[in-house]
Amino acid sequence: MKYKAPALMTDLYQLTMMQGYYLSELKEIEAVYDMFIRKNPFEGGYTIFTGIQEVLIYLENVKFTKEDLDYLYSLGIFREEFLRHLEDFRFRGNVYAVEDGTVVFPHEPLIRVHGSIEECQLVETALLNIVNFQSLIATKGARVSIEAGESSVLEFGLRRAQGPDGGLTASRAAYVGGCAATSNVQAGKKFGIPVKGTHAHAWVTAFPDELAAFRKFAEIFPTSSILLVDTFDTLKSGLPNAIQTAKEVKAKGGKILGIRLDSGDLAYLSIEARRMLDEAGLQEVKIVASNELDEYVVRELKRQGARIDSFGVGTNLVTGRGDPALSGVYKMAAIRKGDGPWESKMKLSETHGKSTLPGIKQFYCMSSENGEFMADLIELADAKPSFESGIVGIHPFMDYHTRVYTNIYNAEPMLTPAMSGGKIVRAEVSAVDVRERVKNQLSRLHPGYLRLLNPHVYKVSLGPELAAHTRSLRDQVSKIRRE
Amino acid sequence: MKYKAPALMTDLYQLTMMQGYYLSELKEIEAVYDMFIRKNPFEGGYTIFTGIQEVLIYLENVKFTKEDLDYLYSLGIFREEFLRHLEDFRFRGNVYAVEDGTVVFPHEPLIRVHGSIEECQLVETALLNIVNFQSLIATKGARVSIEAGESSVLEFGLRRAQGPDGGLTASRAAYVGGCAATSNVQAGKKFGIPVKGTHAHAWVTAFPDELAAFRKFAEIFPTSSILLVDTFDTLKSGLPNAIQTAKEVKAKGGKILGIRLDSGDLAYLSIEARRMLDEAGLQEVKIVASNELDEYVVRELKRQGARIDSFGVGTNLVTGRGDPALSGVYKMAAIRKGDGPWESKMKLSETHGKSTLPGIKQFYCMSSENGEFMADLIELADAKPSFESGIVGIHPFMDYHTRVYTNIYNAEPMLTPAMSGGKIVRAEVSAVDVRERVKNQLSRLHPGYLRLLNPHVYKVSLGPELAAHTRSLRDQVSKIRRE
Repeated sequence: MKYKAPALMTDLYQLTMMQGYYLSELKEIEAVYDMFIRKNPFEGGYTIFTGIQEVLIYLENVKFTKEDLDYLYSLGIFREEFLRHLEDFRFRGNVYAVEDGTVVFPHEPLIRVHGSIEECQLVETALLNIVNFQSLIATKGARVSIEAGESSVLEFGLRRAQGPDGGLTASRAAYVGGCAATSNVQAGKKFGIPVKGTHAHAWVTAFPDELAAFRKFAEIFPTSSILLVDTFDTLKSGLPNAIQTAKEVKAKGGKILGIRLDSGDLAYLSIEARRMLDEAGLQEVKIVASNELDEYVVRELKRQGARIDSFGVGTNLVTGRGDPALSGVYKMAAIRKGDGPWESKMKLSETHGKSTLPGIKQFYCMSSENGEFMADLIELADAKPSFESGIVGIHPFMDYHTRVYTNIYNAEPMLTPAMSGGKIVRAEVSAVDVRERVKNQLSRLHPGYLRLLNPHVYKVSLGPELAAHTRSLRDQVSKIRRE
Repeated sequence: MKYKAPALMTDLYQLTMMQGYYLSELKEIEAVYDMFIRKNPFEGGYTIFTGIQEVLIYLENVKFTKEDLDYLYSLGIFREEFLRHLEDFRFRGNVYAVEDGTVVFPHEPLIRVHGSIEECQLVETALLNIVNFQSLIATKGARVSIEAGESSVLEFGLRRAQGPDGGLTASRAAYVGGCAATSNVQAGKKFGIPVKGTHAHAWVTAFPDELAAFRKFAEIFPTSSILLVDTFDTLKSGLPNAIQTAKEVKAKGGKILGIRLDSGDLAYLSIEARRMLDEAGLQEVKIVASNELDEYVVRELKRQGARIDSFGVGTNLVTGRGDPALSGVYKMAAIRKGDGPWESKMKLSETHGKSTLPGIKQFYCMSSENGEFMADLIELADAKPSFESGIVGIHPFMDYHTRVYTNIYNAEPMLTPAMSGGKIVRAEVSAVDVRERVKNQLSRLHPGYLRLLNPHVYKVSLGPELAAHTRSLRDQVSKIRRE
């Protein structure tokens, strides 16, 4: 997989801070940063983590070109000494990350970056840009797919996506989240995603009449056509013409794959269409529906008995309508000078969601014997939590809330090595395999967490050592504030 | 300017329709398609049209590579004859378009594409993808900038933008819409946009204390630093430390450019900060504020007397929060066989917004003597509306609503040649110049149209010939439906 890795794909302040670090006593500082999300998008109960593979490729390749440095020089705020130093810049750090396609929750460290403070700082913007968008759309794709149930979801969003690459990335992410196919041909080619689609209204209006248009289309695509039936009148014109075409094609040994509804009351029309198709002996002809769909409309249509085999979802999926940005952030967790001891760092905010957790951390997904996810536990990375005998979990921000987890069948450490000394140490995983992982992960979550409205809150607790460490740092910061 | 133009950046159905056209009696058909928007985004009163330059570059360069054709072949639905034909595919049509950076309104033909029906069809997806996103973000940028008034708007959205290129495109569009600068360094380099930004919380937390962090930063950036003052406590710690640093720097002949507020009550804090800075004789130190801003929050802050010189706006700007997709569509307006007569096409929908206007059209922006925009008139392109003596305008969908426009000082034809025979015939315009055009255009709109809430509706009427033509086609379509 290729990915662009321009070093200037960053915020200016990363570069000014880098110059600051380089020219100050912080030059030798080694740092650890965590990427985490502050809340699940769409007021949902979970987030699908994806995009890590592109992050790693970016990290392995990021460098400054001569033109980049000339441009920075032209800004008049960077010193030549620093710009010369950037000539050799490479990301040489270590990265631990959750696997692509994992179900994750707020406050968990999803990517842990170890490196010089300079390199950790530079990559923040690109890392967040890549993961935030892809995870957002994958989560939206999962939401729509879950509501569609046995029906499939086709992603049709390219024309309303956020630019060409936005569309390409969105198609992959939507697929990873659970969609069955995309209309985006480039995404099909690049990621091996199934592509779907047949004709638009223009095809029908270019012909003298609808029946002629359908017949010609079926002639050219004798086994793969889906006929759009709402150009004139869905039930009075489109369906009768589609049925006639389907019968003619069937008589010749071919088949019409389906019809597509694109306006009107999709519940009513799909029920009527199914009845008319069945009465004509065309049980095998599928019904595809599209028109401003999202997870809520899909749920309502299903609830009202719509007979829709595939939902075409576009704009609302690829733009993440409802919550068009994931809340992912990237914060300093620890620093040290040379080989000295690590000093934990945390940001204390008056709103819980904006506080950070200090220190170098790992987290564990605890599951029960039937494989169901119970809760996640964040702990200091060098602690050795003993899950066998049950473990006390402490609320991340309200440490008087504790909870004892018992009967833990498995506790999987979720952060695993992804990059060592600037080199990727993980095998590439295809979109198809990431999608399978997402499916498996979601199947292990209790349905209460998957609810669209007011989902159950999946527990993410701190382990005893991290809780104690956090409390002691909080006390220090509070003391500074009071002084 | 470079732009990628992969032919597979399209929906599959464009390609299946192309094969259909190629293998049917429609092969020789020439077509005209219009790109237009159905409504202004964000429930606003106007839309900033941009992205046309990238569209033209795409059209001039789009072609199928051998790998593209191999991929299409692998799908099993395309015939070799058609794929061989695609080897030579180039867009060879003519394009008329509104100028980059124009204020436009629903139903106006913004891009008119003339070409073979095949080439017109292929390019739909890419054209919409490019224009929809850029115009959306430019419009959002204009909305925020208008509310900011004399204060400037800095776009800080890259980390939450919809992928790397989504971020790059968004930065340009936001700037075109009126933002003063971006944090996105790559956008700065590529489009010549001013870049801004200095340091984050990490800079402060990496130092033993806030004052040391500020002093060091000011030492390294003696004339350009903006100090972030909310790491510990804005008024008790951040501001006193920033003021002390600023005084020290000033004593040495340098200057602190500003302070940045990033949490808390930005109205209250900015008023207090201004007072404290002024009392310290630091009238020249500016106040920058950020934190989940959008046009509504900016308006409220201004209304409450906030003393903010620059608003840093990120997520909500680059994702178009509130309405993350523009409603741009691309519809067939006319076709003809060979050199035969043009046959107008229209889509009649039960909802006005989804109907289209038939025929080959032009539109005119009518303005009064002081340069203010009065209304726009859409007319058949070969009609010669006589504006001198006043003209009757007819509502696009309710033709019993008419309006007489008089005292028209100027009526500018808005569609001008952009491409001829597949070659661009317009000079490239820089982002800086497009931004100037937007500014000028907005200054010519009555403030009623710029209102955030319930704006006045700018009139877009049909000229007499188009109105008569539309009525006659509507009658035909209605007749077909009744039969």
